[in-house]
Amino acid sequence: MKFAVLGAGRIGKIHAETLALRLPDTEVTAIADVYEPAAAETAASLRIPVSSSDTLAVIRRDDVEAVAICTSTDTHVQYIIEAARAGKHIFCEKPIDMELAQIDQALEAVEKAGVQFQIGFNRRFDPNFARVRRAIEEGEIGTPHLLHIISRDPGPPPISYVRVSGGMMIDMTIHDFDMARFLIGSEVEEIYAVAKVRVDPAIAEAGDVDTALAVLKFANGVIGTIDNSRKAVYGYDQRVEVFGSGGKIESDNNYPNSAFVSTSRSVYRDLPLNFFLERYKDSYVIELRAFVDAVQNGTPVPVSGSDGRVPVVMAKAARRSIDLDRPVKLSEITA
Amino acid sequence: MKFAVLGAGRIGKIHAETLALRLPDTEVTAIADVYEPAAAETAASLRIPVSSSDTLAVIRRDDVEAVAICTSTDTHVQYIIEAARAGKHIFCEKPIDMELAQIDQALEAVEKAGVQFQIGFNRRFDPNFARVRRAIEEGEIGTPHLLHIISRDPGPPPISYVRVSGGMMIDMTIHDFDMARFLIGSEVEEIYAVAKVRVDPAIAEAGDVDTALAVLKFANGVIGTIDNSRKAVYGYDQRVEVFGSGGKIESDNNYPNSAFVSTSRSVYRDLPLNFFLERYKDSYVIELRAFVDAVQNGTPVPVSGSDGRVPVVMAKAARRSIDLDRPVKLSEITA
Amino acid sequence: MKFAVLGAGRIGKIHAETLALRLPDTEVTAIADVYEPAAAETAASLRIPVSSSDTLAVIRRDDVEAVAICTSTDTHVQYIIEAARAGKHIFCEKPIDMELAQIDQALEAVEKAGVQFQIGFNRRFDPNFARVRRAIEEGEIGTPHLLHIISRDPGPPPISYVRVSGGMMIDMTIHDFDMARFLIGSEVEEIYAVAKVRVDPAIAEAGDVDTALAVLKFANGVIGTIDNSRKAVYGYDQRVEVFGSGGKIESDNNYPNSAFVSTSRSVYRDLPLNFFLERYKDSYVIELRAFVDAVQNGTPVPVSGSDGRVPVVMAKAARRSIDLDRPVKLSEITA
Amino acid sequence: MKFAVLGAGRIGKIHAETLALRLPDTEVTAIADVYEPAAAETAASLRIPVSSSDTLAVIRRDDVEAVAICTSTDTHVQYIIEAARAGKHIFCEKPIDMELAQIDQALEAVEKAGVQFQIGFNRRFDPNFARVRRAIEEGEIGTPHLLHIISRDPGPPPISYVRVSGGMMIDMTIHDFDMARFLIGSEVEEIYAVAKVRVDPAIAEAGDVDTALAVLKFANGVIGTIDNSRKAVYGYDQRVEVFGSGGKIESDNNYPNSAFVSTSRSVYRDLPLNFFLERYKDSYVIELRAFVDAVQNGTPVPVSGSDGRVPVVMAKAARRSIDLDRPVKLSEITA
Repeated sequence: MKFAVLGAGRIGKIHAETLALRLPDTEVTAIADVYEPAAAETAASLRIPVSSSDTLAVIRRDDVEAVAICTSTDTHVQYIIEAARAGKHIFCEKPIDMELAQIDQALEAVEKAGVQFQIGFNRRFDPNFARVRRAIEEGEIGTPHLLHIISRDPGPPPISYVRVSGGMMIDMTIHDFDMARFLIGSEVEEIYAVAKVRVDPAIAEAGDVDTALAVLKFANGVIGTIDNSRKAVYGYDQRVEVFGSGGKIESDNNYPNSAFVSTSRSVYRDLPLNFFLERYKDSYVIELRAFVDAVQNGTPVPVSGSDGRVPVVMAKAARRSIDLDRPVKLSEITA
Repeated sequence: MKFAVLGAGRIGKIHAETLALRLPDTEVTAIADVYEPAAAETAASLRIPVSSSDTLAVIRRDDVEAVAICTSTDTHVQYIIEAARAGKHIFCEKPIDMELAQIDQALEAVEKAGVQFQIGFNRRFDPNFARVRRAIEEGEIGTPHLLHIISRDPGPPPISYVRVSGGMMIDMTIHDFDMARFLIGSEVEEIYAVAKVRVDPAIAEAGDVDTALAVLKFANGVIGTIDNSRKAVYGYDQRVEVFGSGGKIESDNNYPNSAFVSTSRSVYRDLPLNFFLERYKDSYVIELRAFVDAVQNGTPVPVSGSDGRVPVVMAKAARRSIDLDRPVKLSEITA
Repeated sequence: MKFAVLGAGRIGKIHAETLALRLPDTEVTAIADVYEPAAAETAASLRIPVSSSDTLAVIRRDDVEAVAICTSTDTHVQYIIEAARAGKHIFCEKPIDMELAQIDQALEAVEKAGVQFQIGFNRRFDPNFARVRRAIEEGEIGTPHLLHIISRDPGPPPISYVRVSGGMMIDMTIHDFDMARFLIGSEVEEIYAVAKVRVDPAIAEAGDVDTALAVLKFANGVIGTIDNSRKAVYGYDQRVEVFGSGGKIESDNNYPNSAFVSTSRSVYRDLPLNFFLERYKDSYVIELRAFVDAVQNGTPVPVSGSDGRVPVVMAKAARRSIDLDRPVKLSEITA
Repeated sequence: MKFAVLGAGRIGKIHAETLALRLPDTEVTAIADVYEPAAAETAASLRIPVSSSDTLAVIRRDDVEAVAICTSTDTHVQYIIEAARAGKHIFCEKPIDMELAQIDQALEAVEKAGVQFQIGFNRRFDPNFARVRRAIEEGEIGTPHLLHIISRDPGPPPISYVRVSGGMMIDMTIHDFDMARFLIGSEVEEIYAVAKVRVDPAIAEAGDVDTALAVLKFANGVIGTIDNSRKAVYGYDQRVEVFGSGGKIESDNNYPNSAFVSTSRSVYRDLPLNFFLERYKDSYVIELRAFVDAVQNGTPVPVSGSDGRVPVVMAKAARRSIDLDRPVKLSEITA
């Protein structure tokens, strides 16, 4: 299966490497980036034949069957629509867009074209979270009652990024909103969120928050929480717990090694993995494998366009709850 | 130090045994219970000289310096007032009472009499939670930002008890409200709570809930959650996590042994301790040790009358939040 | 059941307290110690009616049904013989004696008198080791193939004690020899041991070793190891692992609390319990409970006189292996 | 750096993939296998230009700078000598050979040619074991006193393989002999080993054993053990513990995920990784990275020819100890 990768930034390079080297039945025929040298450099190191700064031309190439959209968020919708029109299957990084009207345009184009469309919520494919989902699906812990998601970054992004990020809920918590839906397999109807600036006053000056707690009420009766911080000094902290009528399941962080040391002061181990690309390394390969399989078999993708839209609604509801200090129903979010 | 134990039920027996056998500098000179045979039986097994069904007479005995009130909640205030008037130091099980006006009467009597008065929030003295508190007090994890309390019973109480319990918030969550204040060392200003019946419809018929989630906003900026269930099939689940600017601390459950077994199916261990008396065994001894020390040294007790009052206010705020589906400030609770 | 406790040292006090306060159906009618003030002090604090420096007179008292022998090792045999002659049941601390001829005299006296006789190998009653034994007994890990015992003290005894201790094998490893037989339920036929002085040269000067490794060949084909050190800086290290055809079981140390802290440097917990009396606290109560039950029901004691003799043979075989640098059969040990 | 891979079996394919795809500065110009279709298939899937059944011709190709020898053990020495003569750097799977005279011929040829020569003891590069080595190197646990290696396979090899394997010590334990030297950084002087057939009588009929325990005495005073079984029903069990004057360090197995489930029966997790290629996945990449670095920088390889020879001597000593039931010095092994 022949891919074009759009965007040669951090995540673009990872997907290009997976498609060029890791998966046996895929290749990358072209890579595009508005900054041409970036595209050229990645092309060279991965032996990709074509690099270009003309993204639209790359999308339309005859030797491209599918595109992986890894460009900045504000360009997603345009490229989705172009790729759909050109009949290319689409893998797109999250979020689709920050505005629902835009998202709906993209979804419409995809549906009209009848191409496959998968959103890059890679964490669903992480072995830890996939195991938790499986437990719930198979009834290993009975009917779920309570969910807790811990999702803390090792450090805040640059303030320049914070200013244009759309805010913590849509930039960071969006992953957790997807995780909540994925794990529980039911829709959230209402969100109550509380947020603070505890890490860095500059984040407040940029109009954002860095510490947050959201409560989710699901249609199936589950109550969930999401715990977010922009700065966990001990590393990337990504855990979940689901409690149900038949038990509970908890996932832990990943560590660089399994060694425990006991000295005269304490029993200790090395810190958990710090960098998200390392923490989620396997999930990037597995999600593309799943996308390729869906395209080749004509089966539904595991993360649909609707799965890309709902977390944006959730992020908007959470944001409104923070602003109004009251629970907000998802049905209140109309744009 | 000479004690009278009031009430020879489950917790009364435990305190009687601690005061009669475990602590080297205390003895129990009398035990009272409205059902005289219960008092007599405990007296016999612990070699307590006097047993009686006349609680007031026992309180007033000359050879009694302090009382441990372990009777039903509705009798607490009366015995507190009587004991205070008689100049006896008072250890009283929680809650003081379900009504603030009653509690205030009791606190007033205690203050007037100048006797020591400690509330039986024993979990503060559990080695796991005490360790978490110490970490926060000593700055081991920096400034706290987020708190999570998991508090799940192994099974619901009898429906007959549920009906008169005052509801889950004041009957069960009250311990967690105390734990939250104890760990963070700051007052809660606002509570948002969600509750469901997921365990047993009979609990709904009795007018109560069995699954709940509360969000606490503290004066010092910490955001906390309490997760409650009346039925964790794997045992008594009592854990906390505190996250701060310098790290996090998590406590786990206690287990009957440390063995892990690996077979062809899984790697497993035995279930955590199921029974609260076993789980919190040590804490009952340590809390009475602390009370006796405070009396003997004339120093403040570690759990004051005010510490007994505030969680009742919190329970009422949580209950109101459940009823109104909005966050409720503690300042809204006036009775 | 009325006990006399012989010896008011560290372990004598523990057994006296258990028999006087912890077990509901036992009492201590007398306590003896060659140093009378020690006996008197313990008697006073536990309200034991009689204290004395005349051990033989105490043994023979009419109001004594059983004795707990907690005196120095060189007096054990004499007191066993006296107690047996007087028809008293006997609980005796390990080792019975350092010489087999002496041990055999004691066992003969016990058999002749028909009294119950239990050896104080308390670790068998520790919940961790008891759980491992249960796994093996019930076939939870299939047929055992390999056994590992880690047994490291937090610090060496005083050199003055080392000189008269009989050597590390009989003083310290003897517990592990018993543990090996207890866990596997088969006799050891041959031992190969290696020993070094790594902790303190003064131990070498005193003619002993402080670091050792023993290999045990069992009659049922199991191969076992014992790892000993006199000094583990992180605390008392007492673990076992048994591997079999159906899996493995491992036990860990006990910790003062369950809290884990994560900071910017590491993920850590507090050190394991350091003091053997704290680590094995429960086992002292359970072993006496088992002794009392055996006496009252006329059933076999869980740790017999033979169980007291065999580990002494094993210690002698291990010592000889160290001296000769070759495996030594237990059948080679005749005195 | 241009490689030829010799042997297209399981490990040959892994190294070919690493050199062709994983390392950015290496390529595979040819692959050889006596069974040509195997070579051709791997060549096709990895886009290797040349495949051949003529191993010697491949070794001598001008576009080959280094060879990775992944053929059957009995061919190693011949290919080492040929490659050395042709001036190619050599990465060779373990063991070099089963006979010391043969090994010495190979080492001589390598030395004469002045090429780099690294042995494939990949476990040294596993993050868990590398962490343990680092602890010892940096004094994190003080001076080492005791070492334990647990090394159990998930299942025995086919009996046809057992017959030609050279026996468990040289086929399986050889990895652990290397690990022991690597971790402790000192030579073993004497070995005592005990072995049994507990897994499958057919292994006895094939003249081998399946369960073993070896004791190692190191020149620096450390005492070590190796625990081997051909069948751990719960998966691949590869752990070490080192105890020293300043503490201990323990490494655990790797698991497919971090999830723990608690139900009404137990608290459990999924079994550890079962397959050695999965368990040691990272180590295969890291060892070749290290080899390439050593060649490119002209620095010593991390696993030398001598490191390949000594474990063979240790295996022979262990085998002799099993046969003679006594400790055997390495100096006794002359051929």
